[in-house]
Amino acid sequence: MAEKATDVIDSGAKLLLVQELLKTEQHQELIDFFSDQSEYEIASLLESFPKPERLELWALVPLELKGEVLAEVDADIRSALMADIPADEIGVMAEDLDAQDIAEILDNATSEVRAAVIDGLDHATRMQVSKLASYDADVVGSYMDPEVVFVDQSLTLEQVQLLMRSDEDLLDDQAQELLVIDETGQLLGLLSLVDIIKFDQSMLVSEHIDTAIKVLDTMPIRDAAALIRAEDFRFAPVVTSEGTLVGQLNAEDILSIVRDDADSTLKHLSGVSDDEELFAPILRSAKSRSFWLGINLLTAFLAAFVIGRFELVLSQVVALAVLMPVVASMGGIAGSQTLTVVIRGLAMNQIGGSNRSWLFNKELWVGAINGAIWAIVVAIVSYLWFDSGAIAIVIGCAIVINMTVANVAGIAIPLTLKEMNIDPALSASVILTTVTDVVGFLSFLGLASLLILN
Amino acid sequence: MAEKATDVIDSGAKLLLVQELLKTEQHQELIDFFSDQSEYEIASLLESFPKPERLELWALVPLELKGEVLAEVDADIRSALMADIPADEIGVMAEDLDAQDIAEILDNATSEVRAAVIDGLDHATRMQVSKLASYDADVVGSYMDPEVVFVDQSLTLEQVQLLMRSDEDLLDDQAQELLVIDETGQLLGLLSLVDIIKFDQSMLVSEHIDTAIKVLDTMPIRDAAALIRAEDFRFAPVVTSEGTLVGQLNAEDILSIVRDDADSTLKHLSGVSDDEELFAPILRSAKSRSFWLGINLLTAFLAAFVIGRFELVLSQVVALAVLMPVVASMGGIAGSQTLTVVIRGLAMNQIGGSNRSWLFNKELWVGAINGAIWAIVVAIVSYLWFDSGAIAIVIGCAIVINMTVANVAGIAIPLTLKEMNIDPALSASVILTTVTDVVGFLSFLGLASLLILN
Repeated sequence: MAEKATDVIDSGAKLLLVQELLKTEQHQELIDFFSDQSEYEIASLLESFPKPERLELWALVPLELKGEVLAEVDADIRSALMADIPADEIGVMAEDLDAQDIAEILDNATSEVRAAVIDGLDHATRMQVSKLASYDADVVGSYMDPEVVFVDQSLTLEQVQLLMRSDEDLLDDQAQELLVIDETGQLLGLLSLVDIIKFDQSMLVSEHIDTAIKVLDTMPIRDAAALIRAEDFRFAPVVTSEGTLVGQLNAEDILSIVRDDADSTLKHLSGVSDDEELFAPILRSAKSRSFWLGINLLTAFLAAFVIGRFELVLSQVVALAVLMPVVASMGGIAGSQTLTVVIRGLAMNQIGGSNRSWLFNKELWVGAINGAIWAIVVAIVSYLWFDSGAIAIVIGCAIVINMTVANVAGIAIPLTLKEMNIDPALSASVILTTVTDVVGFLSFLGLASLLILN
Repeated sequence: MAEKATDVIDSGAKLLLVQELLKTEQHQELIDFFSDQSEYEIASLLESFPKPERLELWALVPLELKGEVLAEVDADIRSALMADIPADEIGVMAEDLDAQDIAEILDNATSEVRAAVIDGLDHATRMQVSKLASYDADVVGSYMDPEVVFVDQSLTLEQVQLLMRSDEDLLDDQAQELLVIDETGQLLGLLSLVDIIKFDQSMLVSEHIDTAIKVLDTMPIRDAAALIRAEDFRFAPVVTSEGTLVGQLNAEDILSIVRDDADSTLKHLSGVSDDEELFAPILRSAKSRSFWLGINLLTAFLAAFVIGRFELVLSQVVALAVLMPVVASMGGIAGSQTLTVVIRGLAMNQIGGSNRSWLFNKELWVGAINGAIWAIVVAIVSYLWFDSGAIAIVIGCAIVINMTVANVAGIAIPLTLKEMNIDPALSASVILTTVTDVVGFLSFLGLASLLILN
């Protein structure tokens, strides 16, 4: 089979090519180009255009690819793409998809679309789709592939080969292992395709069973992903609490969870909502960012209120107003350095039990040591600038206090949120900034009131 | 084969268990526990302890697992673990590892260790290791598995089966596809194990070749990872520019790149260096965080310098000192929201060509609209607080200006850095804060000087 003409083109170059073809209205070339691309690549390209161009391109995606592309795009974009298509046409698109893709599409479909899609399915697929839909969104059951292929341990390797030859659709090309069950239907483990081929054909399946790490269908998907990664398995069989085999969880599904999780931590730390999409319309983006801007405003006014308590000393020593952002800013950076390291450690399950107090102690000292070093630098610069020993001492002390508190807060806040079952990435950042601003202004202006006001 | 006793224990519970066993000095239990764990799990557990405990645990890891664990832990931790072991013992540990793991271990080994490890290798592995070491660290060549198994297209499926049966070590259990070459050694594509089994055994390999997406050995690893993900392949053959097959790149390697990349973006945005490890000793962490604290101090003093230009108006209207952090803070959050969305888009290759101007325009309007809304809120609160229309007008205008500039800077900075081949995540955050602080203070105090000073 020939290589694809598109082999050498990277995603960046593909984006430029599609922009060019769209601008010059070379519609047939776009159709040809899309037919050569995977559903992932097409989904990513559609996501790289503002809505009007996206709908134009969508009309040029070959019909036989549309179903898989729909299953792949972000949920927000999917609804928009589906809005313009008659329900029965979506039903046709979905006909050849597997249960996982169909469940994805139905997830945010109208009831009319839902009926059209389900009508077009054969009995087996319909059962699988309703099985997937019966699970909560964040557990293994809703991510698994419900189509599993299993063999009885009492067969010979040759019999397994004949079985596979008798049904072409039994395994797809990417399969690499079969699940092995005993006569009661209990899962025993795995049989690799390599073993089926390479050993004496009269040997029994039972002689070549590899251990399978099973996951429960109701296990949180993130725990399952961590487990599979930890064990370096490409998939894991999924069982119910009664031990019934109901599906398998594949490494590809975990790849997207790893990516989504990382994305979501990054977005949460910067106050961007999960569903904010790069090419979302102006008003929608403005709206989705408003929530954290509002929260931030409350904390900014809290900091302003703290400053307001010290109007007297500020009006007498204007240098304090000039220097106070330095104190808050150093605390902010120090705290967010700690916060990042701790949130990453929590995500990797590396923080727990007795190492928490070790980490508290460590962050306290890192804060105090770096605080002391930068306090000296800031004190010297301030002294040279304002020619005042009192200001130099006050700002130096305030920096040590704020950076030490910032580091301890950088670990205390995410651990407390985690304890309360709140996503630390989502709110830790804004709480931390509040702490470092308030402590920064309070210590700096408070000490100044005590030492300078007379 | 029996299931493992540890099947049901998640990573968090394992950490607590190991802490408990270590504390109560149940060394034999720890050895037994470790023998049941994968190298990934052991590596993650070792990374979850401060150095003294880590070395204690390391001594209890069964010798036959130590090599693989070494290859798995973070580079920093690896050096520390290796420091206490005689070179020839490391040589023994490495003997059974594959070329990829050995290359990993040699990456930061002393010359003595290097000699001991290389001495213990057979000729083939030694050639593979030196091949891997000949590539730059960030290209496909240094990540690939140099051990590839290929078959000639002119064989029958039955001959392939016999070939596999004749050499037990030819394929490991996890293999799922063979590479197919023609008589000149040119790569033609892939042959799946499923196809070997399921079709008539007299058919030729050439009738069942699947297209292979090849990657160049000198291609940046991140581009290759994006490509493989886009095509949903579990591995890709690696070829030189002359077309010679030199290895294959597996999905597992990409999983860790996806994770490392996400980690590194997160760390860079918060000013934490890539090699900062959660349980690093106090002084090392303090040192590794100093760089960005220092950079931040420079920008904080730049902001202070801007404030210093307005001492006159500050000394007359102390309310300005109270309110000025609000202006800077709102700009900072608005800018970092944009920055996050843009850096994610860049990482996914979704920004380029004509959509850049669309995004600039979008961010300008999102900034202006949100700026206007929050300006009104802030102006009203400020008016009620200080009973001054002039202050309300000044702060409202400053918020609109700063939030609009912040949003535009949030896209302009990462795009410019990318254009200059600098990692946007690494420096964009500190440049953005400088912009929002300077513009915030300048617009607020500047407008105040014009409107209020008289």
